[in-house]
Amino acid sequence: MDTSAFVTSLATSFAIFIVLLFLYSWLSRTSSNFVIYYPLRISRGLGPPEDVKSRSPWAWLREAWQASEKEIIDLAGLDAAVYINFLDAVLQILGYSAFFCVPVLVPLAVTSDNYSTAVRAPTDPAFGGFDKLSMGNIAKNKSRIWAFLIAAYWLSIVTYIVLWQKYKHIINVRDQVLSANARPEQFTVLVQNLPPPTNGTRSEQVDAFFRKLHPDAYEKCLVVTKLHKSSKLWTKLDSLKRKLKHAEAVFGQSKTKDKPEGIRPQHKTGFLGLVGAKVDTIDNSKEKIKDLSVKLQAEQKRTIAEEQEASAFAIFNNRAVAAEVSQSAIATIASKWRTSQAPEPEEIVWGNLSMPYLPQLFRKFGIYFLVFLIIIFYMIPISFVSALTSLDNLEKLVPFIKSIVKIKVLNTVLQAYLPQLALIIFLALLPSLLMFLSKLEGIVSHSHLVRATAGKYFYFNVVNVFLGVTISGTVFNALKKITKQPGQIVSLLDASLPPQASFFITYIALLFFVGYGLELSRLVPLIIFHIKKRFLCKTEEEIRDAWAPGPFNYHTHVPADMLIVTIAACYAVLAPMVLPFAIMYFALGWIIVRNQALKVYIPKYDSGGRMWPHMQARILAALVISQITMLGYFSVKKFVFSFLLFPLPIATLIFAYVCNKLFYTAFRVTPISLVSTDLKDMPSVASLVEAYTPTCLTPEDKFEDAEKFEDARSTATSRTSSGITSPA
Amino acid sequence: MDTSAFVTSLATSFAIFIVLLFLYSWLSRTSSNFVIYYPLRISRGLGPPEDVKSRSPWAWLREAWQASEKEIIDLAGLDAAVYINFLDAVLQILGYSAFFCVPVLVPLAVTSDNYSTAVRAPTDPAFGGFDKLSMGNIAKNKSRIWAFLIAAYWLSIVTYIVLWQKYKHIINVRDQVLSANARPEQFTVLVQNLPPPTNGTRSEQVDAFFRKLHPDAYEKCLVVTKLHKSSKLWTKLDSLKRKLKHAEAVFGQSKTKDKPEGIRPQHKTGFLGLVGAKVDTIDNSKEKIKDLSVKLQAEQKRTIAEEQEASAFAIFNNRAVAAEVSQSAIATIASKWRTSQAPEPEEIVWGNLSMPYLPQLFRKFGIYFLVFLIIIFYMIPISFVSALTSLDNLEKLVPFIKSIVKIKVLNTVLQAYLPQLALIIFLALLPSLLMFLSKLEGIVSHSHLVRATAGKYFYFNVVNVFLGVTISGTVFNALKKITKQPGQIVSLLDASLPPQASFFITYIALLFFVGYGLELSRLVPLIIFHIKKRFLCKTEEEIRDAWAPGPFNYHTHVPADMLIVTIAACYAVLAPMVLPFAIMYFALGWIIVRNQALKVYIPKYDSGGRMWPHMQARILAALVISQITMLGYFSVKKFVFSFLLFPLPIATLIFAYVCNKLFYTAFRVTPISLVSTDLKDMPSVASLVEAYTPTCLTPEDKFEDAEKFEDARSTATSRTSSGITSPA
Repeated sequence: MDTSAFVTSLATSFAIFIVLLFLYSWLSRTSSNFVIYYPLRISRGLGPPEDVKSRSPWAWLREAWQASEKEIIDLAGLDAAVYINFLDAVLQILGYSAFFCVPVLVPLAVTSDNYSTAVRAPTDPAFGGFDKLSMGNIAKNKSRIWAFLIAAYWLSIVTYIVLWQKYKHIINVRDQVLSANARPEQFTVLVQNLPPPTNGTRSEQVDAFFRKLHPDAYEKCLVVTKLHKSSKLWTKLDSLKRKLKHAEAVFGQSKTKDKPEGIRPQHKTGFLGLVGAKVDTIDNSKEKIKDLSVKLQAEQKRTIAEEQEASAFAIFNNRAVAAEVSQSAIATIASKWRTSQAPEPEEIVWGNLSMPYLPQLFRKFGIYFLVFLIIIFYMIPISFVSALTSLDNLEKLVPFIKSIVKIKVLNTVLQAYLPQLALIIFLALLPSLLMFLSKLEGIVSHSHLVRATAGKYFYFNVVNVFLGVTISGTVFNALKKITKQPGQIVSLLDASLPPQASFFITYIALLFFVGYGLELSRLVPLIIFHIKKRFLCKTEEEIRDAWAPGPFNYHTHVPADMLIVTIAACYAVLAPMVLPFAIMYFALGWIIVRNQALKVYIPKYDSGGRMWPHMQARILAALVISQITMLGYFSVKKFVFSFLLFPLPIATLIFAYVCNKLFYTAFRVTPISLVSTDLKDMPSVASLVEAYTPTCLTPEDKFEDAEKFEDARSTATSRTSSGITSPA
Repeated sequence: MDTSAFVTSLATSFAIFIVLLFLYSWLSRTSSNFVIYYPLRISRGLGPPEDVKSRSPWAWLREAWQASEKEIIDLAGLDAAVYINFLDAVLQILGYSAFFCVPVLVPLAVTSDNYSTAVRAPTDPAFGGFDKLSMGNIAKNKSRIWAFLIAAYWLSIVTYIVLWQKYKHIINVRDQVLSANARPEQFTVLVQNLPPPTNGTRSEQVDAFFRKLHPDAYEKCLVVTKLHKSSKLWTKLDSLKRKLKHAEAVFGQSKTKDKPEGIRPQHKTGFLGLVGAKVDTIDNSKEKIKDLSVKLQAEQKRTIAEEQEASAFAIFNNRAVAAEVSQSAIATIASKWRTSQAPEPEEIVWGNLSMPYLPQLFRKFGIYFLVFLIIIFYMIPISFVSALTSLDNLEKLVPFIKSIVKIKVLNTVLQAYLPQLALIIFLALLPSLLMFLSKLEGIVSHSHLVRATAGKYFYFNVVNVFLGVTISGTVFNALKKITKQPGQIVSLLDASLPPQASFFITYIALLFFVGYGLELSRLVPLIIFHIKKRFLCKTEEEIRDAWAPGPFNYHTHVPADMLIVTIAACYAVLAPMVLPFAIMYFALGWIIVRNQALKVYIPKYDSGGRMWPHMQARILAALVISQITMLGYFSVKKFVFSFLLFPLPIATLIFAYVCNKLFYTAFRVTPISLVSTDLKDMPSVASLVEAYTPTCLTPEDKFEDAEKFEDARSTATSRTSSGITSPA
């Protein structure tokens, strides 16, 4: 990448960001947009900030900056707090690294002359001046390389210290949250893979065992049932009710002064409402709702009686006993009577609760293998796209582009952005596929699904984006030359690896300026909301659905951030100028995520920060990759003391092992000491039973209550007092 | 190895075996030898078989053959039964493999002609006719190799099926034993790494937590103390008491008719009894015992009060609750309040109970690294010894050997045995070192120590003996030729690998004929016993100590067997003639181990068959090694379908993972369902406290009882009713 393309890329990114920032501070003052910019505050009953109309454009910055961790946890939950802690940890690691790498290594590199003397002529157009700031500009086996070696150690040690402290901090915070709040899942044990009962019913089987073991603490069990049919009926009923409300609202609005009797809405009964007899929508819906309600009730009864599966929720009145039971092996063969802490009611994946153990295990292997194949073979289309999106190739393939390319400015912009854009669009297709595959694994909670998807996505990113771009870029550049001077592979690799850094810098800049600009300004949700409100929504409920933003998408956010971490870690020493850009990315991310956590995203459930061990492991994975890359590159530089880098990956693995041993247990299970404290208010058994009864099995007359309650619930942090009542 | 050396080796081994067998049936009829051949039966109060003087020489064979598993468990414990099951499993695997490999592969190999045509002249003296029975005699890329490929699959599948069934069988047996017998360790939880108590004593700290958690089930705790000083005093006192008894016995025997007053034994008080004043041994000992008893009592009090450490045994009155607590994470940081099921009282490694967690973790890494170094660098002396022990080299180094070598028979015998003998002697030095290192790891029970040592020893065997001999033999042979025809490495490897099989066959034959012959005839213990009895022992106690055989040495037996398993698995397909010899080894082992388990070895403790998962994992490790060896050798044979062997190692890893997931938990912890059955007779809390009080802290007036009891105890299988009483 030549210098002008590089600067253009940065400049346009920055310009877009400024525009988006301006749009945000303007749009967020208009009261019709409040539901887009302050939905969390509104749904929690706080409303937009008081001075919203008169405030300075930087007020949001100050608010996001000043919010305490406790405020964030209270408003947005522990998961958001942990995500912010993750950004904070990365920021610290990169900051401390930059503290050494930038002022020491960059001057050493820029005053060297490897590129100008040894490798190629300075007139080579593909070679930017920026590349001279990297280790590539140091000649082979110079004593200056010692400074880079020290930097490698510095980076590793800084990472260990920061991660160690963060892990301890997050465990502390989690401890406080878990021990203070009585959550329904703390009283409930999920028992899976029950063997067929020898005599009596499923619930008798479970009762008999737990009542004998804990006569005082055990209350009752809820056997899991196949929900397929009830769920279908329930969804149908729900959509009919919405339709009815919509029709009533339309009818109400049609009652103008001129026409006080209004126009009753009608629709056709046939395919997609396009054919068939015309009927009165309100009457028709009411009739259908009546029918369906009867059917649903019958189906609910049948499901509870006949569709019982081999798993159950066992409810205890004592958190400590429930925690003990959830951690104990019950049967000798581990595929039977598997216990674990129940997921939070809101995040249960009902369909996966009753998968048989061995098939699930093999399914998991199958899916890992499939993901492995996807990761490997995505390389092919990606390299194809990379080749396509070089302007020269595009000109040949799509001749009309030639006229566009002739415009000087446009040419530079295109050359700067095309490869990155292609990469980003390509990646957008993947998360849903990975989420789907993770669900097939038989995971029982949504937060676990999110973690599983994020893990797969991270490895995809590392292999395809990071390694893919680095290796194919490097090898491709090297191959171009090799035809002319064969036998010089190593020195060509030497010259080609660091210049990839500038590609990644523009990639990071694009992500952080444009990505975070869009995130903050919420332009897309804003437009969609206004369109929906104008043309589609009639009832309050529909309008709420149109603006309700849902939770953070951790499964795409975290891997994207992790990719930047990997890039930054790998180039921190080899091309330290990556660091300032990565730091800007995470600084901007930190402040904007805090803003969004405090004002925008509404969490559906809280996993209690279980994402953290996952994040920590991935940061360490990125560190190992960077350590191995450095080992390789130092050897290419024929530095005789390269072997001194050997202990680093081993140290990282040991560090990961020790952290895992010390801290991970507290995330995997609930430690007894946390839940053996006395509680002021215990949830009633009835409320626990309600919470773990799926909505579609709730008696119909409770629906209305349940729905009303659902609105109320999202304004309260506590989830214990679900209003759904037990069937029979 | 040429054919005559090979046959000589087998023949001499067999001859020695016959002699030892004859010696056994003769010696075991003499009543003065009963304590050597039937010690277990004697200590269990059964005495030698009734017809012992008139029985046929094969009676022991029938008895060992007919004994049921229940009898073995009752007499020798679950550990011995599991060891026999292990031999049985290996026997089945090898038997089923031989069923296919010998009749199919051997004819295919022997009717081929690779050795006679392609590789070398048939006159090559180092090349035995036996080698023609191996895959080496098949020419490259022949369709006959398909049969060998099928054999590779056959071997793997047979292993999976046998191991799967064995695992289930052993879990079943273990379940029955564990749930029926109330053992003290089932009621006791070891709590390690307690944080410093904030207020009050250690025992108050532990009491407060568990009493709150399980008010009904928790009884009391025993805080672990530093035993160093008390233990030293106790040992000294004990040896003085023995000395006194010995002296009294000597005095008693000296009272002959001629001299009814006897001679009072005397000794010198100085260094080793060689210098210093002469004193009356009986009086002197009595005096010293008096002094020491007072000192010990004071020290015991001081230890209990002042030397408390950061760990404790928590005693419950309910097995299920104890099992739950032992499986639960208590503190958030896993290095605090670590719980686990207490080891059996007899096998506690007291000094390791209170190691701080993190230092122990790093110690473990350090020791693994050290063992890794030992494994790698033992190669050097081993190859040195191998080179030395070839007769030609010995002649050069030790010229006088020349005259011996001239004797034709001796020459052949030496050539057959020298390398194997060197190997065996060399290996005998290692187990104690590995045991010592394992102890430094901070392992808290002896049975775990044995497993850890066996694991290290197995990897040592694989790397140094198996890989060492195979590779150095192969490469050495290949190198000899390579100087003449460079560039033919592959075809030379092809020729050199299978002939190593005959080395291993003689090695196996030596081990099984001579090793098991010695094991059965117990010549060495017999001789030592008679010498001791004649010249040293005066008291009953001393005589008992002279014959008491102790338990099986699993930490040397199992790795030795595993080495044969590895050899057999690796050569089963490449050189199937290894199989009959390996089968003979394990068949002989099976019958002799049963005999020894029923009659000889006296177990000190029973780990409940926890060795099995270890054995199963090692068998699978051997299988993976064999699968990779085959993959390599098939490629050397340039067989185009070699890639079909790729799924095998992966399948083995998946099999190991699935077994681990399904079955291992039941060995790691006690499943709740096993211990939630009601017990007829519960051990009293007092008896539990007694069991977990170290002997050196037992009040002195209980010593005599305790010692008497110890004799009684070894005659009973149950260990619940230890007679040692609690201090205070």
